[in-house]
Amino acid sequence: MAVTSTRRAIVRIPASGDAVSRPDDLAVEAPLVLGLDNAGGEAIATLMRTPGHDLELAAGWLTVESGVAAADDVVTLRECREDDTDRVHITLADGVRPPRPRAFVTSAACGVCSADVLDLSLLRRAAPHPPGWTVRRDVLAALPDAMRQRQRTFDRTGGLHAAALATTGGELLSVREDVGRHNAVDKVVGRALLDGLLPAAGLLLVVSGRVSFEIVQKAVAASVAGIVAVSAPSSLAVDLARDYDLLLAGMVRDGRLNLYAGAALVA
Amino acid sequence: MAVTSTRRAIVRIPASGDAVSRPDDLAVEAPLVLGLDNAGGEAIATLMRTPGHDLELAAGWLTVESGVAAADDVVTLRECREDDTDRVHITLADGVRPPRPRAFVTSAACGVCSADVLDLSLLRRAAPHPPGWTVRRDVLAALPDAMRQRQRTFDRTGGLHAAALATTGGELLSVREDVGRHNAVDKVVGRALLDGLLPAAGLLLVVSGRVSFEIVQKAVAASVAGIVAVSAPSSLAVDLARDYDLLLAGMVRDGRLNLYAGAALVA
Repeated sequence: MAVTSTRRAIVRIPASGDAVSRPDDLAVEAPLVLGLDNAGGEAIATLMRTPGHDLELAAGWLTVESGVAAADDVVTLRECREDDTDRVHITLADGVRPPRPRAFVTSAACGVCSADVLDLSLLRRAAPHPPGWTVRRDVLAALPDAMRQRQRTFDRTGGLHAAALATTGGELLSVREDVGRHNAVDKVVGRALLDGLLPAAGLLLVVSGRVSFEIVQKAVAASVAGIVAVSAPSSLAVDLARDYDLLLAGMVRDGRLNLYAGAALVA
Repeated sequence: MAVTSTRRAIVRIPASGDAVSRPDDLAVEAPLVLGLDNAGGEAIATLMRTPGHDLELAAGWLTVESGVAAADDVVTLRECREDDTDRVHITLADGVRPPRPRAFVTSAACGVCSADVLDLSLLRRAAPHPPGWTVRRDVLAALPDAMRQRQRTFDRTGGLHAAALATTGGELLSVREDVGRHNAVDKVVGRALLDGLLPAAGLLLVVSGRVSFEIVQKAVAASVAGIVAVSAPSSLAVDLARDYDLLLAGMVRDGRLNLYAGAALVA
């Protein structure tokens, strides 16, 4: 049985009163490498997914990305664990159009393995914050609402994600919207780059949705001090935020929030 | 000024009483092609995004995907519209590591252009439904809640998307969860493939979140009759659903729903 949720110790901060440490259940996010045996076992994609039903995930991915249209188009789907990474080995029937290689690689290293996917150190440009840096809990609690008030298109459509760059004083330096939450973050990071604000050490990235591996990756590339999110992070997001010394606040609603990483940075 | 929302005529179905036609504002989703002048103008990526701040989006994307770490690493960012598609031409400074080509291509055609990105006809395996096919409004209204009741991991973590395949009788054939909503859909489509249920003509794809281009793409590949979503679709999702004769119901909550495409298919 695949592990779809996992537990981490977090700090819960209520709207008023003392913070409490407690365990919290997180959705698991982990890489799945797809290898094509027709191409000598070459890795053709790395999907960041919640474990479970991995053969179905591979089959469904093939249905969109290749010429696979029926079960007979796939000769074998075999799951295994190699080098501490889940893999699915695919053999397509003769004549079935294979997927174009489109590997998810986050470093300049060639090839795809779990180490490549999870090593963000090549992205890091600076320490995320100066020594002694802290942020007040009431500032964190107020940031999502402040961003929401500047989401103009969301008000009309109900269909947009947002991201913002904020100071520890609670000032929003930029707010951007997009149908894709990764795009909203890229717009904010790009604005900071063009303004000469990168590395953005000591600043906070605010996001309207959930926090996945991909969002932490972007936060590390921008060297922000932390991430403040309206919704929950994945297990991998929490683990990477801890590894890279980021603050990670999530479920920030109605004055309450959870600290998944960097609790010592909150005054 | 970029157009971030657009209006379409939709049919709104209340919890009780008659359906009404009315205009609705949708978040715009459209392709942005990034071209690298250092590589002879080669298209290196196509991002499905909401127009606006496209230079920032390109700059932020480069910060994560290439060696760009400061404004000086980018010599020029130039936006233009060619062949009815928005483009950003990038020139990187000498010595800056370029992004790995990782184009978003949805067809077997080589190269990237808007036609490739938006032409789903190569994915289509069958008509989405037989002649005379209809579905009852109360079935559509009930599907998200039925799926929600089978989301086991969401209950613990609050952090997972879900997708399901359903019949017009309201039966859920499979429910899958994942941190990525595209993965949840792939798992459901993959299950159908392995069960010999593809093309899934006459069946409905239920999704817990918003409906983007990517979700419609997967629905077309699976040849389902329609998509039922808890949240709002993008403009492009609506346009493609109409082009490919799919039912698209969104904002399905508390007995209410909006029909963005295929209203004639609802009894």
